[in-house]
This record gives sequence, structure tokens and C-alpha cells, in this order.
Amino acid sequence: MHDHRVESRLTGQPTHREGNARQAGIDRLLLANLLEREIDTALDALNGTAPLMLTMARYHLGMTDSSGDVVNPETRQTVQGKRIRPFLAMLAAEAVGGQPEAAAPVAAAIELLHNFTLIHDDIQDRSPNRRHRPTVWRVWGNAQAINAGDALFAASQLALLRTPTPADTTLRLSEAFNRMTISIVRGQVHDLEHEGRADVTPGDYLTMIHGKTAAIVRFAAWAGAIVGGASPEVAEKFADTGDAIGMGFQLRDDMLGIWSPVEETGKDEADDIRRRKQSLPILMLRERASDDDIARLNALFSQEEIDPDGIDEVLAMLDHYQVKQDMQKQVEDAHARAMTALQAATVGTNNPAIDELKDLITRLGSRTS
Amino acid sequence: MHDHRVESRLTGQPTHREGNARQAGIDRLLLANLLEREIDTALDALNGTAPLMLTMARYHLGMTDSSGDVVNPETRQTVQGKRIRPFLAMLAAEAVGGQPEAAAPVAAAIELLHNFTLIHDDIQDRSPNRRHRPTVWRVWGNAQAINAGDALFAASQLALLRTPTPADTTLRLSEAFNRMTISIVRGQVHDLEHEGRADVTPGDYLTMIHGKTAAIVRFAAWAGAIVGGASPEVAEKFADTGDAIGMGFQLRDDMLGIWSPVEETGKDEADDIRRRKQSLPILMLRERASDDDIARLNALFSQEEIDPDGIDEVLAMLDHYQVKQDMQKQVEDAHARAMTALQAATVGTNNPAIDELKDLITRLGSRTS
Repeated sequence: MHDHRVESRLTGQPTHREGNARQAGIDRLLLANLLEREIDTALDALNGTAPLMLTMARYHLGMTDSSGDVVNPETRQTVQGKRIRPFLAMLAAEAVGGQPEAAAPVAAAIELLHNFTLIHDDIQDRSPNRRHRPTVWRVWGNAQAINAGDALFAASQLALLRTPTPADTTLRLSEAFNRMTISIVRGQVHDLEHEGRADVTPGDYLTMIHGKTAAIVRFAAWAGAIVGGASPEVAEKFADTGDAIGMGFQLRDDMLGIWSPVEETGKDEADDIRRRKQSLPILMLRERASDDDIARLNALFSQEEIDPDGIDEVLAMLDHYQVKQDMQKQVEDAHARAMTALQAATVGTNNPAIDELKDLITRLGSRTS
Repeated sequence: MHDHRVESRLTGQPTHREGNARQAGIDRLLLANLLEREIDTALDALNGTAPLMLTMARYHLGMTDSSGDVVNPETRQTVQGKRIRPFLAMLAAEAVGGQPEAAAPVAAAIELLHNFTLIHDDIQDRSPNRRHRPTVWRVWGNAQAINAGDALFAASQLALLRTPTPADTTLRLSEAFNRMTISIVRGQVHDLEHEGRADVTPGDYLTMIHGKTAAIVRFAAWAGAIVGGASPEVAEKFADTGDAIGMGFQLRDDMLGIWSPVEETGKDEADDIRRRKQSLPILMLRERASDDDIARLNALFSQEEIDPDGIDEVLAMLDHYQVKQDMQKQVEDAHARAMTALQAATVGTNNPAIDELKDLITRLGSRTS
């Protein structure tokens, strides 16, 4: 039954959701297919006389290699990204009693927007690899990579406009989507300003990631709830849930940027130290290190790039001051906040989507990639 | 009366347009103020914890210097750009019997979008100056300049969403706006692909500028007509008018990129030759030059950058093969097409906005900056 339903979706035949009667849990493959279809539709707009535009987009999204050839399904799983944000939007819609189909366009918009920001971030940060492959700018140069990001940004707007809500609701979604985008860009402006500075506080940093990372997760949960038919009050509680998930996600990412091996993240090990990223572990270290250690840290961070020996020194300091344990505690706190907000958003109701959201929050707290 | 009306608009007091009864012509200052107010409103969204984002936007738009201090009105006139696209949208609205106020949001969106593309183009082309001042990337670096463009793109969407049309019409405008943006990016992908290649044809080039330059002018005229209440058929004729204006504008720009002195364009003289831009004059030269001259041209264009002596050689070839005269002919042809399309769009009607549009087309054909 499960496979049949998915296949009928893939072949374009009419299909019906069982709604609350379906107790077996969330059909992740169905959600993935709904999302994929909307992403494909938005990308159709990039097709035309400059094939490179679509090629760059599809490469970055993990659909093809840099020649434009479709990658095999196993490769795709490792290079397309986790798609947590769009799934969150679709699950939020389902959690409030709506149809995930209705949230698929805004979910696609979120995923495309996220990938636009990644392409530009990779240029700005000079990141050589993303999801185990060379970044777009390394394959096609900075100038074309800027175009790839711009094109995905425009395509994300087209995806959002397909949302099957009343026109005034869609306009409200579009406004929130673009305000959220400005929040992301503002966070990125801060992030770049922080690099190479020794006076960034953990508070500055939390403000930055709240805008840069949490805002899109917040939007995903909020928009999904709105599309699913939630009241503004309930949607706001979903926003709080997304906000906490987003903060926890970034804090966990900060840990992985330092303590996770390349085969799991697709980035170089301790890459965030190498490129002198002022992530929270470094800022916490500055707060608690001795004067001598701070002086040494500043000397290392005043270089253009930190070499392998320098990276080992920083790792030893982080270990000495027990930063990793305290980071893990902060990640857990964020996910506890997310769980509390979700319970407040869904009080008195239960369905497989709510269970799936709870599972997601639990899993994100200890993810390793 | 003229001044009073503008002042009351500036002070926010209620004011009434005289509509068709006002025969004295178009009140350009009123249009400028309506546009400015909408741009300011959209830029408000960039205000926040990262002042640099708004500073870069306002600097690029010619409102402030790089310290964020407001420039004096005379300076502003030379550094803010000509704003032809937004005025075209407002004039189109008025030409079909609508209110320019209603078109001010989409006009602001067009101007902000245009400036987003300029900021990114300047990074991609390594252009040192724009409108007589250092480009954003030269002042704040590539990475922050990418952010400045991204922020203006998002702000442009917010401006468009303020259009006081029925919600479904606004959604239609937003979709067309983003499809047009993709057309611009596609044109820029082509443009970058053309650089350094000797086999680009005039046909390739016309395809490229049709997407990159004419598309936004086409959209401006179309969207203005839609907001002004035109039928789809009439709006399509305005689109044709904008298309021809846009083509003529770019062809004239190609002339100015080669034959206009720095004090008029704000760019270095023959800057397009220096950076080996494959603009139409060069492509026409390739079509008609002798084998020896083409070989010499290819040798010059195979350098990283063309030096002053090389620029003089290219200028002499262009002169020898009479490229300038033929370019001027093409500019005139485009503007003649624009005039014909405008007449078809407004057949049987007349008003000051239509007259102003005709004047605009005539003036653009021989502009020197």
C-alpha cells in the first residue's frame, strides 16, 4: 500500500491521503516526492538559452555532477543536503491538520532560498567544499557562482507564489519570506564583520545566528502552520518551535565544524578553525582562557589562515577549558525549548506529524552530520 | 500650485491629482517624490543590527557617501542614476488613465532590482567605478558587496508587494517580476560566457541583451500599464514599447562605453574595450574587418586587459570600418520601433503621460550619459 501510493504520485495518477486514519506514521518518501516536484517546477524557469544557469543550480542541489549528468541515487543522498527546513514546513502543515501537498511550494521555496544563501556564503567564505564536492565558485568561478545564487533566489520566489492559499495569504507569506531573507543577509553581514576580530562576544554571536540560521527555520515552521490552516496564535508557537530548532541546529553545526571528521560533514576537519571562524566554541574559549592562552589565540587568529599545527593548539585549548561539553549542553537546552514550544503549539492534539516533529527535534540534538 | 502640491505630498498631507484636467504636462518632481518614498519604505526593512547593510544600499543608490552621510542634492543628481525604468512604469500607468501613485511601489521594486543587478555586475566585471564613484565591492570588498546586492533584491520584492492592486494581480506582478529577474541573470550568464571568446556573433549578443537589459524595461512598461488598469492586450503593447526602448538603451550604452568621455558616463573612457567587453561594436567590427585586422584584434583581446595603446588601435579600427555610424542607425531603429509600439498601445487617446513617453523615447536616442 505504501509503495503503491508513492508510485501513483510519481506517475501523476490521482491519489488520496488517508489523513488521520493513517496511523502508521509519516510517509517520508511521499513528502520527498512532493518537495522534489515543486523544486523541479521552480527550476524549469531557469531552463533556456544559458544552460549553465540550470546546470549550476542542479549541481549545487545535488541532482547532477558538474557536467550536468544526473547522479545515482546513493550519491544524491550524500550530496543533496538534509532538507530539514522544507520537511519541517510540510510536517508543520500536517501537524495542524492541513495537507503536506499544500505546503510543498513554500517548502521548495525555503530549500531553494537556503541553497542560494549557501552558494553565496561559499564564495564569501572561500569554502572549497560543500557536501563532499567542490563548491560552485570553485567549479565555475566567483562571477558565475554569484549568478547561480541570484537565479536560485528568484526561483525560490516563484516556488512560493505557487502556494495554493488565498491570494492575500500568499502575499503575506511572500512578505514574511523576504523579510526573513533580509534577516539572513543581515546575519551574514555580521558574520563577515566578526571574522578576524578579537572582541566579538557570545551575545553578538547569538544575535548573528538568530538572524542568519534560526530565521529560516522559524519561517519554515510558521509558514507550514499558516498554509496548514493554523490560527495566527498557533502559527506563532510553531515559529517559536522553529526558532529553537534553528538555534540548536547552528550550535550543533558549530560543534561539527570543529570536532567532526571530513567523511561525515563533507567539510575539512576543524575547517572552522582553519578559516578563523568566530563560532561559539572560540568565543566561549576567549571568555574563559588565561591571559597567556588568549594572547596565543589572538596570535593564531591574526594569521591569514591557521595551519595544521595551529589548529591542533586551538583544539587542545578547547579541550582544556571543557568547551565541547558546555556546547553540547547548549544544544540540548535549545532542543528542550523547541520541544516545549511544540507542546504548547499542539496542546490537546496528536497525530503522526506531531510525533515526527518530536522525533526530529530529538534526533537533531545528537546528529553527527 | 505646482510647488504647493509637491510640498503637501512631502509633508504627508492629503493631496489630490487633477487627472486629465491637468494639461500642463507631467509633474516630474511629484513622480520623483512618490518613487523616493517607496524606495525609502522598502529600505526601512534593511535597518537593524547590521548598519552596514543599509549603508551599502544607500551608498550605491546615491543617497549617501560611503560613511553614510547624506550627499547634497547636486551630488545626488549625478550619482543616483537616471531612474528611467521606474519613471517608465509610472508614466505607463498614467498613460492608460491610472494614477502614478499606484505604480510607485512596482517602480521602486524595479529600481531596487536594477541596482541589485548593478552591484553584482560590478563585482563580476571588476568595474572600479559606477556613476563617478568607487563601486560597492571596491569600498567594502566582494563578500559584503554580494550581501548588499542580495539585500536590495529582497527589498525589491517587499516594494512590489505594496502595490495597491487586488491580491491576485499583485501575485501576477510578482511572478512576472521574478521571471524577468531570471531573464536578467540568464543574460548575465551569457555576458560572462562571451568575455574572451572570439566566436560570439551579433545574434548571440542581441539575445543576451534582450534578456539582460531589455527585459526589465519591458517589465516596467508592462507592469505600469497593468497597475494603471490596462487590458492584457494593451499592456502587451506597452511591453513591446519597453522592449524596444530597452534594446535602444543598451545599444546606445554600447556606444557610450566606447566613445564617451569619463566626465559624462562616470566610467573610464573606452572602458568596455579595456575590459575586453564583447559589445556590439566589437562584434560588428569582427564581421567586417580584414583577416589581418581580425588577427590583430584577436591578439589584443587575448590579453588579460587591453592597454591604452591597444585601446587606440581598436578605436582606429572601429573608425576605419564605420562602426559608429551603423551603431547610431541601430539605436534610431530601436527607438522608431518603440514609438510605433507606443502609438499602437495608445491609439485614439492622448494625455500628458503619453506625450512624456514620446519625449523620453526621442531623448534616449541621442543621450550622451
